[in-house]
Amino acid sequence: MFSKNLIKYSKSLHLKKNRFANHQFIVEGEKIVKEFIQSDNQQIFKLFAVQKFIEANLAIIKKKKIDVIEVSLTELAQISALNSPNEAVAIVKMQSHDINYNTININGALYLDNLQDPGNLGTIIRTADWFGFKEVLCSPNSVDVYNPKVIQATMGAILRVNVNYIEFLDLEANIKKTSPNFPIFGAVLNGNSIFKTNLKPGLIVIGNESQGISKHIVNHITFPITIPAQKNNGTESLNAACATAIICSEFFKHQNLI
Amino acid sequence: MFSKNLIKYSKSLHLKKNRFANHQFIVEGEKIVKEFIQSDNQQIFKLFAVQKFIEANLAIIKKKKIDVIEVSLTELAQISALNSPNEAVAIVKMQSHDINYNTININGALYLDNLQDPGNLGTIIRTADWFGFKEVLCSPNSVDVYNPKVIQATMGAILRVNVNYIEFLDLEANIKKTSPNFPIFGAVLNGNSIFKTNLKPGLIVIGNESQGISKHIVNHITFPITIPAQKNNGTESLNAACATAIICSEFFKHQNLI
Repeated sequence: MFSKNLIKYSKSLHLKKNRFANHQFIVEGEKIVKEFIQSDNQQIFKLFAVQKFIEANLAIIKKKKIDVIEVSLTELAQISALNSPNEAVAIVKMQSHDINYNTININGALYLDNLQDPGNLGTIIRTADWFGFKEVLCSPNSVDVYNPKVIQATMGAILRVNVNYIEFLDLEANIKKTSPNFPIFGAVLNGNSIFKTNLKPGLIVIGNESQGISKHIVNHITFPITIPAQKNNGTESLNAACATAIICSEFFKHQNLI
Repeated sequence: MFSKNLIKYSKSLHLKKNRFANHQFIVEGEKIVKEFIQSDNQQIFKLFAVQKFIEANLAIIKKKKIDVIEVSLTELAQISALNSPNEAVAIVKMQSHDINYNTININGALYLDNLQDPGNLGTIIRTADWFGFKEVLCSPNSVDVYNPKVIQATMGAILRVNVNYIEFLDLEANIKKTSPNFPIFGAVLNGNSIFKTNLKPGLIVIGNESQGISKHIVNHITFPITIPAQKNNGTESLNAACATAIICSEFFKHQNLI
């Protein structure tokens, strides 16, 4: 039943503190909810969906005995955190996955320092998946990956990319236990051209949208890299997600020799 | 005076039909409003700003005799179209700039087909400025460039990039009058690797966020290009603004031989 208590609970998950108190988060939108309910690794606490969605996904809902509540679009809007609710909202159990240092050592990883925009984080996770970066690390003061806007912007990539929060210095210390010379690339304004840098697997540090990389991290960067710009263009920086996309693309190209 | 009528008028500009009826649009945020009032090419109808902003920009406000109204942050929130209003909102007169076919012929241009997300359009304009693409063309059904979220996401690049709306077939016909063999690149899912394509100046077509490039345009693409992905990654596509950033970066690299 679509009860008042359930509406209240679902809406409470729009806030980080409630998500972490209950170890649950919400996933929205026809396409991404479908991916979540089909995934073998996700536990769905509740599924709110319009009739059309339920009919289209009846087999998997029955097979997994998902607790589904049929709602109208108006009812869906009552619990949605997005401007345009779309067919389904799922409440999903949080899971913790340890950082895979073996994967980092072999393929490299992204480190996001104080990233604040939910759309940027989600988009970066989507890009990371596209180019095969399976580990994304965030500073503890970065935006919460369980923010509904982040989940939405990943377009499902959150199911395939391992996201963890860790202080940079702790991460670096852990990596250096086995790889003392692990390269640390950092996107800065006055680094070497990324087009002229030997981009081997390493830690790729992306800074905050307006302030860039924190001071306590900058000194640890072994390869400062910059995306060259047209002279006299006037724009001071690229969007963080776009800069990350270009950087991931360049690393991918180098590592795949294409 | 911060009158009710003025609040009502300012808010009315959140809607496209009112922007075009009045030939005015709103610009928000400390940094970008500052760029607009400093620009010699912009006509400011009204400036709403907190005391701090006015003091910091008093010289230019006086020099240009800008009609400024001091407001509180709460008052600013009454007219703002953004979630977090920031120091200043300006009402600016729309200007029309013709498409510069000469620039297109020499440097190439972006064509955005049915792009819908305001953040994507703004971010693409910012990226275009970074890499020196001065002409951005949009299909008439794309999101309005004067949408406050678009202006915000350009981070000021809108002052330097010429954005126009035109049907693809009309644009193509105009270009081909002087350059019958002008290359038309299109970002598609099954094209040739962008990393292996000779990227000379041309028209670069980017499609809608979920549907890609329209059928009536696809047949006109002479160079279908694709951003390669890690095998078995699961993510079906990149965010449109990120894909455009990677494409612009590759074109920039080729044309600057770096």
